[in-house]
Amino acid sequence: MLPPYSGLLTDLYQFTMLQGYLEQEMEEVAVYEFFVRKLPAGRNFLLAAGLEQALQFLETVSFSAEEVAWLEQSGRFTPKLLDYVANFRFSGDVDAMAEGTVFFSDEPILRVVAPIPVAQLVETRLINLLHFQTLVASKAARVVLAGPGKLLVDFGLRRAHGAEAGLLAARACYLAGFGGSSNVLAEREFGIPSYGTMAHSFIQAHTDEAQAFENFARAQPDNVVLLIDTYDTEAAAHKVVALAPGLARDGIRIKAVRLDSGDLGEHARKVRAILDAGGLNGVGIFASGNLDEFEIARLATQQAPIGGYGVGTRLLTSSDAPYLDCAYKLQEYAGHPRRKRSEGKATWPGRKQVYRHYDANGCMAGDVLTVESDPQPGEPLLQPVMRGGRRLHPAIPLQDSRSLAAQQIGRLPEGLHALTAAVPYPVQVAPALHELARAVDERRV
Amino acid sequence: MLPPYSGLLTDLYQFTMLQGYLEQEMEEVAVYEFFVRKLPAGRNFLLAAGLEQALQFLETVSFSAEEVAWLEQSGRFTPKLLDYVANFRFSGDVDAMAEGTVFFSDEPILRVVAPIPVAQLVETRLINLLHFQTLVASKAARVVLAGPGKLLVDFGLRRAHGAEAGLLAARACYLAGFGGSSNVLAEREFGIPSYGTMAHSFIQAHTDEAQAFENFARAQPDNVVLLIDTYDTEAAAHKVVALAPGLARDGIRIKAVRLDSGDLGEHARKVRAILDAGGLNGVGIFASGNLDEFEIARLATQQAPIGGYGVGTRLLTSSDAPYLDCAYKLQEYAGHPRRKRSEGKATWPGRKQVYRHYDANGCMAGDVLTVESDPQPGEPLLQPVMRGGRRLHPAIPLQDSRSLAAQQIGRLPEGLHALTAAVPYPVQVAPALHELARAVDERRV
Repeated sequence: MLPPYSGLLTDLYQFTMLQGYLEQEMEEVAVYEFFVRKLPAGRNFLLAAGLEQALQFLETVSFSAEEVAWLEQSGRFTPKLLDYVANFRFSGDVDAMAEGTVFFSDEPILRVVAPIPVAQLVETRLINLLHFQTLVASKAARVVLAGPGKLLVDFGLRRAHGAEAGLLAARACYLAGFGGSSNVLAEREFGIPSYGTMAHSFIQAHTDEAQAFENFARAQPDNVVLLIDTYDTEAAAHKVVALAPGLARDGIRIKAVRLDSGDLGEHARKVRAILDAGGLNGVGIFASGNLDEFEIARLATQQAPIGGYGVGTRLLTSSDAPYLDCAYKLQEYAGHPRRKRSEGKATWPGRKQVYRHYDANGCMAGDVLTVESDPQPGEPLLQPVMRGGRRLHPAIPLQDSRSLAAQQIGRLPEGLHALTAAVPYPVQVAPALHELARAVDERRV
Repeated sequence: MLPPYSGLLTDLYQFTMLQGYLEQEMEEVAVYEFFVRKLPAGRNFLLAAGLEQALQFLETVSFSAEEVAWLEQSGRFTPKLLDYVANFRFSGDVDAMAEGTVFFSDEPILRVVAPIPVAQLVETRLINLLHFQTLVASKAARVVLAGPGKLLVDFGLRRAHGAEAGLLAARACYLAGFGGSSNVLAEREFGIPSYGTMAHSFIQAHTDEAQAFENFARAQPDNVVLLIDTYDTEAAAHKVVALAPGLARDGIRIKAVRLDSGDLGEHARKVRAILDAGGLNGVGIFASGNLDEFEIARLATQQAPIGGYGVGTRLLTSSDAPYLDCAYKLQEYAGHPRRKRSEGKATWPGRKQVYRHYDANGCMAGDVLTVESDPQPGEPLLQPVMRGGRRLHPAIPLQDSRSLAAQQIGRLPEGLHALTAAVPYPVQVAPALHELARAVDERRV
C-alpha cells in the first residue's frame, strides 16, 4: 500500500458541489466514465494502468474527525455537508478494463456508478491515479517495442515528479514490460526487481579509477557492473580488462560495464572490441543517459552491442507527452443519459462498453464502442470489479497484469508498433450510441 | 509535513556504493552540490524551491527495524551495511539559496558536506524534492509574468504526476506568486488559499442550466462563480443576467462566471458585453482550460476582459519542459576537489559560492561563480542552513519565501521577463574557479 493521503487531497469544488447536491437532496444514481479524449501526437495506443491503486483508494477513502473539524473551521460548509463527509465511504459500483489492456481514445477504461455526491467526490484522486500510471505505462510500452530482448530498467526516480510519481512509475514501467527499476521501495512495495551499482561519485571519490573498480567488485562480488565513462571510456575499458584476471582468481566475475555519456553506439562498439580482445566476451554492456524509445530504436538500427538500458527522466516524466487529455465525465444521472457539449470537448453519453475483435491470427482487428444495453459480438473489455464499494475479486498480482500487457502488445496490429503516428486503429461508434447522442441533443431522453 | 516516505525510496546504487565505502572504510568528508546544468530551451531563469521539504527529509530520514530486516533478507548486503543503515541519521552540513531565489545554470542552490556515505545516501530523494518544486516554481513564475495583476489559481492536481506532485506543485506555484490552488490539502498543509466552485457535471446533473446556477448560488451564497460553457456560453450568460435580480433580492451576489472552452478571448468579450448590458458590471470573468503562460500572454495582448485564470495540467507537468537537467555532484572528497569530465557533462569542482551584483536601481546586474575560499564583492547567495544535521533557523514561512520570489522576479533585468529566449543573464566564472578546474584536470590538487 502507498502511504495514504488525506481525503482532503482533492479539488475544493468537490466540496462546494457536494454542498449543492445535499441542499437540493440530489442523491440519485450518477454514472461517470474515465477516458482519454485524444491520444498524444505520435502515439498509436495507450496501456491501461493504475486500477489497483484506484480501487485501494475507493476502498479506503474517508475523512478523520480532525479533517472534518478543519473543514468546519474554514466556515465554508454547512453542518449537513460536514456530517456527510464525516460518514463518507465509497459505496458505488466500478467496472473497468484490466490493467495492461490496450485502449484508444473515447474508450472508457473505468466506470463508476454511485449516488452523485459519492461518485463526484472521488473524481480528483481517481483521475490523478489512473492518468499517471496510464501515461507512464503507455510510454514504457513504446520503449519495450523499441528494445525487444533488451534488459530495460527504470532509472527515473530522482527526476520523477515527487515520491509517489517515482514509485507508481516504477510499477507502470514494470507492468509494461520493463525488467526492473533502480527504486528500492518499488521492490519492497510491488516486488519489482531492483537494479543498481555505482554512480560517478564512487569513481571520483577514489584517486584511481582502477582502484575504484576493484574496491567495488570486492565489496559487491555478485553485482559487478562497472561505470566506465567518468574520465575516458575506452581507457577505462582497458582498465577493466587488466583487472579481470585478478578478480577471476578470487572467483569474482565482472557482469557488465555501464556507459552513461557521449555517443553510446560508438562507445559501445569500441568498448566491445576492447573487452573481446581482452577475452571478456561474457562481459555485457549496459547503457544509460538521456535515453528514450527513439534513441533506443536508433541504437537498435545501428546494431549497437548493448544488452540493456537504464531509462530515466524522459520515461518517468513522459517528456514528449507529459499528460493525457483525459476526463472523468458524467454520462448519466437519475436514469437520464448526459452529454457535455462544450466546444472541442463533446462526449459520448450513457453507460458504455467496448467490444474488441480479433483476426484469425489473434491480432486485434477493431473495436466497437457502444452503449452497455447494446450487446455486440467480440470481447467486452469493461468488467465488473467493485459492487457496493467492495471488490469482487482479490487484487490481481502485478505479474499477471504484466503478462496481460505483454500479450496485448503482442496482439497489436503490426503497424501500431511504430514509434510515429500510424494509420489509426479502427474504433467504430455503434449506431446505438450515435442514436443516444442524438436523443440527448434533442432532449428526447 | 508530507506523508513520510520510507528511506528505501532511493536508488539501489546508493546501498551498493555504501557497501563499497564501508568495506574500504572510506568515510572522509565529501562535498556535493545540487545545480542545473542547462536551462530548458526558452527559459531565462529558474526559481529555487523545495528547500523546506529537503531539510525536513534530512532531519527525519532513517530506516525502521522492519526496513533493515527487509534489506537483510534480500541477501545483497553485509552485516556492516545493515548495521550502518539501522543507525543512520543525516549528520551533515547544508548551505543553500533561500527558496524564491532566482538562479541560473551551473549555480549550486544546495551544498551538502558530510562523510561520503552520509552525503551519498541522501542523493536520490534530495534531487527528487529540489528538482520538482524548482521545475514548477520556475514555470509558474513565467505564468505570473504573463498575467500581471490577474488572480492565478493552480487547477492541476488531477493531472499532476501523483499525490505528492499535486501537493508540492501547489506550494511551488504559490511561492512563485499564484493566488491559490484548487487543492484543499494544500490549504491545510501549507496555508495556500483554496479556490473552487463547480464542474460541468453539476450543470449536467440538472435538467435545466439556469436551475443549476440558482441551486448552486443558494447553496454557496458566499462563493458564487458560475461555470457557463457546458452548452452555449453566451446563452448561459443571458441566464446569469436573468437570475441575478432574484438572487440579489435575497442578498446573494454573483462573483464571477467561468469559461472553460472555446476561444476564451472571444467568449470573454461577448460575455462581458452581455453582463454589462444586464447591469452586471461587477461580475468578473474567470477562465480556464489548457492554459499556460503563452496563452495567457496572448489573451493579455488582446486585452481580453478576464480577471483571473485557472492554470492546470500544462503548469503542474511543466509540459513544455517536464524536467530540468540537474545533478547532485561530488565536488570534493577528503579535502581534494573533484570534477566529472564525462562528455557533455563536465562540472566545476570544489565548494562554490555565487555572488550577485545589482545596478543602481536594484536590478540584477550579473553573478560571479567562484570557489568558497575566494570572497568577492556582491551578495553571497548560498547561506548556512544546517550544521551537524540540525537546522540553524526555524522553517521559513511560505509567505516569506513568496515575498522573496516576488522581490526577486521584480529585480530581474527587463529582458529576462520575456517568455522566449533572451540574451542570457551574465554569470561569470571567476579566475579562481577556472584555476581550480585546471589544477584538478592536471591532478595538482
